Amino acid sequence: MNIHYERTNELQKKLKEEKIEGIIFSTPKEVFFLTGFHQDRTFLLVTQKEVFAFIPKMFFEHFSEKCSWAKISIYENPYDCISQKISNLKLTKVVFDSSTVLYDEAKKYIDMKFEAISGFLKEFRMTKKKEELENLKKSCQIAAQSYKLIKNKIKKGIKEIEIARELEYIMKKMGASERSFETIVAFGPNSALPHHETSERKLKNNEVVLIDFGCIYKRYCSDMTRTFFYGKPTDEFKKVYKIVEEAQKKGISTIKEGVLSNEIDKICREIISINGYGQYFTHGTGHGVGLEIHEEPWINPKTSTKLKEGMTITIEPGIYLYGKFGVRIEDTVYVRKNSHEVLTLI
Amino acid sequence: MNIHYERTNELQKKLKEEKIEGIIFSTPKEVFFLTGFHQDRTFLLVTQKEVFAFIPKMFFEHFSEKCSWAKISIYENPYDCISQKISNLKLTKVVFDSSTVLYDEAKKYIDMKFEAISGFLKEFRMTKKKEELENLKKSCQIAAQSYKLIKNKIKKGIKEIEIARELEYIMKKMGASERSFETIVAFGPNSALPHHETSERKLKNNEVVLIDFGCIYKRYCSDMTRTFFYGKPTDEFKKVYKIVEEAQKKGISTIKEGVLSNEIDKICREIISINGYGQYFTHGTGHGVGLEIHEEPWINPKTSTKLKEGMTITIEPGIYLYGKFGVRIEDTVYVRKNSHEVLTLI
Repeated sequence: MNIHYERTNELQKKLKEEKIEGIIFSTPKEVFFLTGFHQDRTFLLVTQKEVFAFIPKMFFEHFSEKCSWAKISIYENPYDCISQKISNLKLTKVVFDSSTVLYDEAKKYIDMKFEAISGFLKEFRMTKKKEELENLKKSCQIAAQSYKLIKNKIKKGIKEIEIARELEYIMKKMGASERSFETIVAFGPNSALPHHETSERKLKNNEVVLIDFGCIYKRYCSDMTRTFFYGKPTDEFKKVYKIVEEAQKKGISTIKEGVLSNEIDKICREIISINGYGQYFTHGTGHGVGLEIHEEPWINPKTSTKLKEGMTITIEPGIYLYGKFGVRIEDTVYVRKNSHEVLTLI
Repeated sequence: MNIHYERTNELQKKLKEEKIEGIIFSTPKEVFFLTGFHQDRTFLLVTQKEVFAFIPKMFFEHFSEKCSWAKISIYENPYDCISQKISNLKLTKVVFDSSTVLYDEAKKYIDMKFEAISGFLKEFRMTKKKEELENLKKSCQIAAQSYKLIKNKIKKGIKEIEIARELEYIMKKMGASERSFETIVAFGPNSALPHHETSERKLKNNEVVLIDFGCIYKRYCSDMTRTFFYGKPTDEFKKVYKIVEEAQKKGISTIKEGVLSNEIDKICREIISINGYGQYFTHGTGHGVGLEIHEEPWINPKTSTKLKEGMTITIEPGIYLYGKFGVRIEDTVYVRKNSHEVLTLI
């Protein structure tokens, strides 16, 4: 069965349970999740029994190929077209997702008497099915294998931007459609900026190299970070690296269904704190990965999501010594019932 | 003077004119436009005289380097932090931009008594200043020159995806940070899908090749499309190509300050229509290009924006014969007082 059709059926089941007659979607990722068609300006109305798509004329053939089960309307003005459909169907309880809809767009729905509901698709997006896991795995494998290849090219005098470009090119050659976010390559003190912008800076001898990267395969993202010392590592680097490594390993080792996301964060954070670097771990421990590079669940001190099989998350503790160097180690991990699977193993 | 600081000053002038005490921004592109710092989770409150930034701790050093004129608050919860600041400053009329803020986020602002205003930054974003034009020019030149190089590699048996990958690699080698959207490479009947997804399909002899692509240089996008016949062009292709070419040239020739955007669309559309292909030109004639690949002004039958010097738009008429082939020709064009400048010339 087509996975998008399957997802639509699950959603329709939930609509029935919650006594909602219809829900509207308009972001490319939501529409893709439910149809396999990925474009903006495409609106989807899912009712308990049917699916209606509202598209510009130019998408007609393409959309039809991807999603045979939707009834298509070509719109001039999408909101007029949706409103007409709602009225024809005599629907009275229709909702929009307030976590993905812009306020201006929301006002149009509110004018149509739609109600706001937040994150309706989230539970479906968070737990990945077999086909999604396959894409995530492949995405992670491409990233990990590309890293192995690029590592050999890292030499004194090479620019951060050159490493990023070559790495991205290798990932595409291996089947990725694109990078999943702006590749971070940070040399020396640049590695102490968690969101450093990859620059023209050249690598010198005896410097830290931090690479945070990932790719997209069949729309699914991977995310990983590696840090190493180019040259003879200083004692401080070795010490800091060991702490981050221990925190990351410990964090990953606890992953299985039922564990709370903030518990994992706590485990990583405690190891860094008891070693005296707590204040230098300035971000959350991780995040969900899927159609988006950052999505739920969030792995941080404030969020207590109970992990479920199928969730795919990053574990990425770090220590950042401004002006000196930073260390971050990150892997993408699939949650299983009684264990987990690291997808970005090199 | 720093261009982001200059933009902030212009915005503050408008705030005074409109008697607005403060405005909040949170999308990376808006924040970048006003600070030079490009990240999510960064909130900016611009008052008539000051700028306040609300950022996670891990952005502190990086943000400070980029934007020295903002007063920085580190937040745990951004909305609590913003609310506190508003209260300290005793501001009573603060607005948020309903065209860029999600409904869930908007509700937080509404709770703080902020008012919705739509597209407040638009007029500034639409007309590009000298430094922005330089980036746009470079972005377009990289795209155009890369096309020249890739064209030589287009041969029977090559896959669409290979052309896309190599083209993107060349653009990055020439200084682009990334592609500005998913490169479309469409062979044969695929060219008849305006938003074809680049595939594994191999090029055969005597087929249409359509390439729609662009890159990003210092955050500014380029956008262009070229179509040609690989082999001996059919009479139908030659005929259709000539019509699209004429429409595109005529459309571009009319561009200068004061012209209405729908007039340009009409000129292109009429040439295609009088030649009998009106129904096969299934999209608008163009769009603005800048920090976003698609932004205002829109060049279509329904939008009558008066062009102003500094606007940068695409002109991209097309004819799509489903099952057979499509032709689209697109350039990015800078609007001048009495004329225009095509930035994507090869």
